[in-house]
Amino acid sequence: MAVYTEVSDEEMRSFIAEYDIGDLVSAKGIAEGVENSNYLIRTTRDSYILTLYEKRVREEDLPFFLGLMDHLSSRDIPCPEPLRGRDGEALRRLAGRPAAIITFLEGMWTRKVRGVHCAELGQGLAHFHAAGADFPLYRANALGPDGWRPLYEMSAERAHEVDPNLGPLIEDELDALEADWPTGLPEGLIHADLFPDNVFFMGDRLSGLIDFYFACNDFLAYDLAICLNAWCFERDRSFNITKARQFLDAYTGERPMTAAELEALPILCRGAAMRFLLTRLYDWLNCPPGALVKPKDPLEYVAYLQFHRGVEGRSGYGLG
Amino acid sequence: MAVYTEVSDEEMRSFIAEYDIGDLVSAKGIAEGVENSNYLIRTTRDSYILTLYEKRVREEDLPFFLGLMDHLSSRDIPCPEPLRGRDGEALRRLAGRPAAIITFLEGMWTRKVRGVHCAELGQGLAHFHAAGADFPLYRANALGPDGWRPLYEMSAERAHEVDPNLGPLIEDELDALEADWPTGLPEGLIHADLFPDNVFFMGDRLSGLIDFYFACNDFLAYDLAICLNAWCFERDRSFNITKARQFLDAYTGERPMTAAELEALPILCRGAAMRFLLTRLYDWLNCPPGALVKPKDPLEYVAYLQFHRGVEGRSGYGLG
Repeated sequence: MAVYTEVSDEEMRSFIAEYDIGDLVSAKGIAEGVENSNYLIRTTRDSYILTLYEKRVREEDLPFFLGLMDHLSSRDIPCPEPLRGRDGEALRRLAGRPAAIITFLEGMWTRKVRGVHCAELGQGLAHFHAAGADFPLYRANALGPDGWRPLYEMSAERAHEVDPNLGPLIEDELDALEADWPTGLPEGLIHADLFPDNVFFMGDRLSGLIDFYFACNDFLAYDLAICLNAWCFERDRSFNITKARQFLDAYTGERPMTAAELEALPILCRGAAMRFLLTRLYDWLNCPPGALVKPKDPLEYVAYLQFHRGVEGRSGYGLG
Repeated sequence: MAVYTEVSDEEMRSFIAEYDIGDLVSAKGIAEGVENSNYLIRTTRDSYILTLYEKRVREEDLPFFLGLMDHLSSRDIPCPEPLRGRDGEALRRLAGRPAAIITFLEGMWTRKVRGVHCAELGQGLAHFHAAGADFPLYRANALGPDGWRPLYEMSAERAHEVDPNLGPLIEDELDALEADWPTGLPEGLIHADLFPDNVFFMGDRLSGLIDFYFACNDFLAYDLAICLNAWCFERDRSFNITKARQFLDAYTGERPMTAAELEALPILCRGAAMRFLLTRLYDWLNCPPGALVKPKDPLEYVAYLQFHRGVEGRSGYGLG
């Protein structure tokens, strides 16, 4: 939950006036999104989301992110569309921050993932990958395999504070990931952060994908590995193979995966678990004591990692 | 900023279905309001605010607060109106908390108070007092004069951590307030927390009053004293007598104040400053270190208190 930048009503009104979207009626800070400040604004015309980009998003990446949303919207992916001001610019400045207005998406993210959601997700992700294929900009994955060891080194000295075995486990796993990480898999534009709170549903139908601020170019199957971690474990940290099958069946129904991709799923899932384990570990160790927003438990992703280390092949994810 | 209680989409949907307000389209947690969890919900019909009452609001007070909003709405005070479910009940339960849906008010609170806002506030407060006159329920002011000394005693031992002179100053002032607090002034329903973030404007016109969760019965003029503190000091803690005059002139244009009320303004303002000084002091001393929401500086209200101690009479507030 976050509104880091307060915007005065005068600033907000004059900002809105740069667009052809009617007059400002109300603006409420939204208690969602960790990276940026978001306001739900209403004008005499419609509802919109106003985002002020905070320091964790690199300003030079913003044309990529906004361009991507624009590109996906034009290909009928249900995602926010950046609005252009009267001068044609979508990326502007407000209260000293880069800022943009995007369309408001209907729907809610689901707090209780069911199989039907996983199937919708699989289909939606395949559509997203297809639509991203001809997006002309490129962005490397800053949180991909090359980034994991440096990221770990920022936490290494204090990993034992979370669990005495955590440091050795991560080091062992980083060695294995570096040795066995696949090459040559189909690449493309991936979302890279498609957790349940970034996917909206209306009833049981997927109605929107949001939060493209980790999107980058990487193996398409790595995006699936992130989703398998984020959507298919239960609260008791057990893996729900039925949800995995529904997700993967729906995805491959739209884009058949290669044999190499399917064989690589266990190591990709281990890598995806490592990526979130490492950022959570860092946030856990660097959270001020007593902070109102409790960081997420890094050990959840240790449990997921251990599961994937035991998976022999695609059958471990429900595929025949 | 606050959403303390997370509500699943299924819970939210079935809750909405108890009302005749269409189907749920979206729900966003709002990063405003310290006491409760608020969601801005959209249905196929309109936008609404869903409030879950957290532990700092006493459940037995909720019929008073909801009844008051209902009463004021029926008298054309621009404030949220509680909706009744199909069974006629406005106060319901959701996710284990008392909950209610209220109408959505257009407008924004002003981050930069100008004289015109103070004049609108004065008129709006007079209308509010008039409309509250025949509200049949009664609620004592838990944060009135009788509550100040016990409230101070919760912080007394550590007041020196904020400022070495703070404890003696508060004790001296409490003695004076207890000795000189007025009696017999006109009483009625007061808002008791009418800070700028609880007053919405559309352009320069007042469009809404919100957050009635401190409303109670007390001297009407005490409500004005709270507003003088909350609206008429500048960021450098200087008193803007022009804003005070605009506020008081607009108020008395609607409800002439008695001579006793006008004479009591300095002591009432000292009391109001004491009330917010004491709650801020408590929050300051009891805020977990590193908390994301920094508590407000109690010394701001010490400066206000000192100002009012130097005021001789009504002329100090711009009145002839």
